[in-house]
Amino acid sequence: MQALVWEEALRLKDIPSPSPKEGEVLVRVSRAGVCRTDLEVLKGYHGFHGVLGHEFVGVVAGPEGSPWQGRRVAGEITLVCGVCTRCRSGLARHCLNREVLGLWGRNGVFAQYVALPAANLHAVPEQVPDDAAVFTEPLAAALAVMETGVIKPSHRVLVVGDGSLGLLIAMVLARFGAAVTLAGHYPEHLSLAAPYGVAGCLENELADKDFDVVVEASGSTGGLDLALARVRPQGTVILKSTYAGRYPLDPAILVVPEVRLIGCRCGPFPAALRLLAAGAIDPRPLVQARFPLARGVEALEHAGRRGMLKVILIMEHEP
Amino acid sequence: MQALVWEEALRLKDIPSPSPKEGEVLVRVSRAGVCRTDLEVLKGYHGFHGVLGHEFVGVVAGPEGSPWQGRRVAGEITLVCGVCTRCRSGLARHCLNREVLGLWGRNGVFAQYVALPAANLHAVPEQVPDDAAVFTEPLAAALAVMETGVIKPSHRVLVVGDGSLGLLIAMVLARFGAAVTLAGHYPEHLSLAAPYGVAGCLENELADKDFDVVVEASGSTGGLDLALARVRPQGTVILKSTYAGRYPLDPAILVVPEVRLIGCRCGPFPAALRLLAAGAIDPRPLVQARFPLARGVEALEHAGRRGMLKVILIMEHEP
Repeated sequence: MQALVWEEALRLKDIPSPSPKEGEVLVRVSRAGVCRTDLEVLKGYHGFHGVLGHEFVGVVAGPEGSPWQGRRVAGEITLVCGVCTRCRSGLARHCLNREVLGLWGRNGVFAQYVALPAANLHAVPEQVPDDAAVFTEPLAAALAVMETGVIKPSHRVLVVGDGSLGLLIAMVLARFGAAVTLAGHYPEHLSLAAPYGVAGCLENELADKDFDVVVEASGSTGGLDLALARVRPQGTVILKSTYAGRYPLDPAILVVPEVRLIGCRCGPFPAALRLLAAGAIDPRPLVQARFPLARGVEALEHAGRRGMLKVILIMEHEP
Repeated sequence: MQALVWEEALRLKDIPSPSPKEGEVLVRVSRAGVCRTDLEVLKGYHGFHGVLGHEFVGVVAGPEGSPWQGRRVAGEITLVCGVCTRCRSGLARHCLNREVLGLWGRNGVFAQYVALPAANLHAVPEQVPDDAAVFTEPLAAALAVMETGVIKPSHRVLVVGDGSLGLLIAMVLARFGAAVTLAGHYPEHLSLAAPYGVAGCLENELADKDFDVVVEASGSTGGLDLALARVRPQGTVILKSTYAGRYPLDPAILVVPEVRLIGCRCGPFPAALRLLAAGAIDPRPLVQARFPLARGVEALEHAGRRGMLKVILIMEHEP
């Protein structure tokens, strides 16, 4: 099969299709989304090598007789052992022996096929088109901000970063009544969240204001600076993005105003699929380019351009 | 009156007694405790200049006719305006116009007398001796860890730092059933918390273990390193101490394991006084030296020695 492989360089290669192990299925990938984390991997993040990619929608191709066969699915990206102390204490997502699709010890989805445990699958409702279903993972990651339990409908919330993740987070938060401001650099991005009731604002035009919660989704040191400067005393900064490099944290900026800094990663797939099925969030306007897998190297270069929103890979299969 | 004043150097000076303003009382200070923050001020923290000190017990000396006159008191260290947006939104501790005793815009308690708003006072129950009552503020600061609402009786908690604050925090946490480990450098300090059911452990002998909550009370970069290394996924690190300097934070250390880093400062005086009155916490074994105010410069030098616990200043007054 064709796959986009990150070794010493990023290359389209012909490699054997994966063989599903016990409990796993083979998914014929239909669409895959390029995430900023994929681009960080190309800079050395996680030290991963192999098939990149973790955002996808596809159809289960086997094994024969699987109850999943022929179903359209999205899939959780963390593969867990089920027996370590973490798995047994309700922290399976942090399994000591975990593998993560396209990020840690396991080939990802920028390929014609991917093998995945059946336990990781979620059926995609019929009314969700592939171009929306491919956003299941990033929309779940946006919902993770709500899973922290800190945001209330009465809150004034600032989302920093008008990339794909920041937009999805702002849309989700505005849906339950919070007063959401999205700060970014691109008026044309900010306008995509406006129909959801999100107030867009260029970062350098943000009026001096205390926010109850600030979500850092820009993945930049400057974004965290802004977040810590704009959160009110006893407020919370939710850190969504990782990046290579260190942030020079002044402990007093947390201790004196009693501010909370919360790390936040993966979120609930079923909730994301409910919102997509209801048409409550339509992520399709975030797609800025589509490439066939054969042009995958070019697709990732394109995704790395400044101000680029979502780039989608389309997998071609013989009929 | 005599006062210990931090200007270009730390000096014992004869200065006028403060004149209480409207709503304030004059407190004749009996005892004052030296806090690590006082020593940080001498290194430039907050840029404060004036009479140092914020931990005290004393007796209200005036004005004539005040209902507080003659009463023994401890006092909250933050003076608020009561009218700014913060004060009116329940965040008075973070008043935009605040002054803080011996730390920010207001003379402190290393003096024979201090002026303080009556609203800041708490009566000290008769059965609490002065040497215990002088710990009201630091014990309240220790209780602030519980005020965060994150610690449960079922939790395994690690407290990093066997200074005065770390010891008080460990004692408080062990009292409601949490399994508390105190990590430090001095066996003779660790043993002070043992009667409260705290397991003491030298930092370099800490077995490889995940804690639900880690409280950083060492005020050092290495302490925060240890805290972030030992907290379990989805656990919380409570940051108690400020220090000059920056911590090089890797955002992924919070985001990937979904860890929370919480700043925590002042705590509830009434709760601290209830524990002292009940004899539930006896902080007196933490006192390692007593100096008369006249030897205040020497007292602060002494408090700055490695491994020193609480140093107390005793104010002398003419009969």
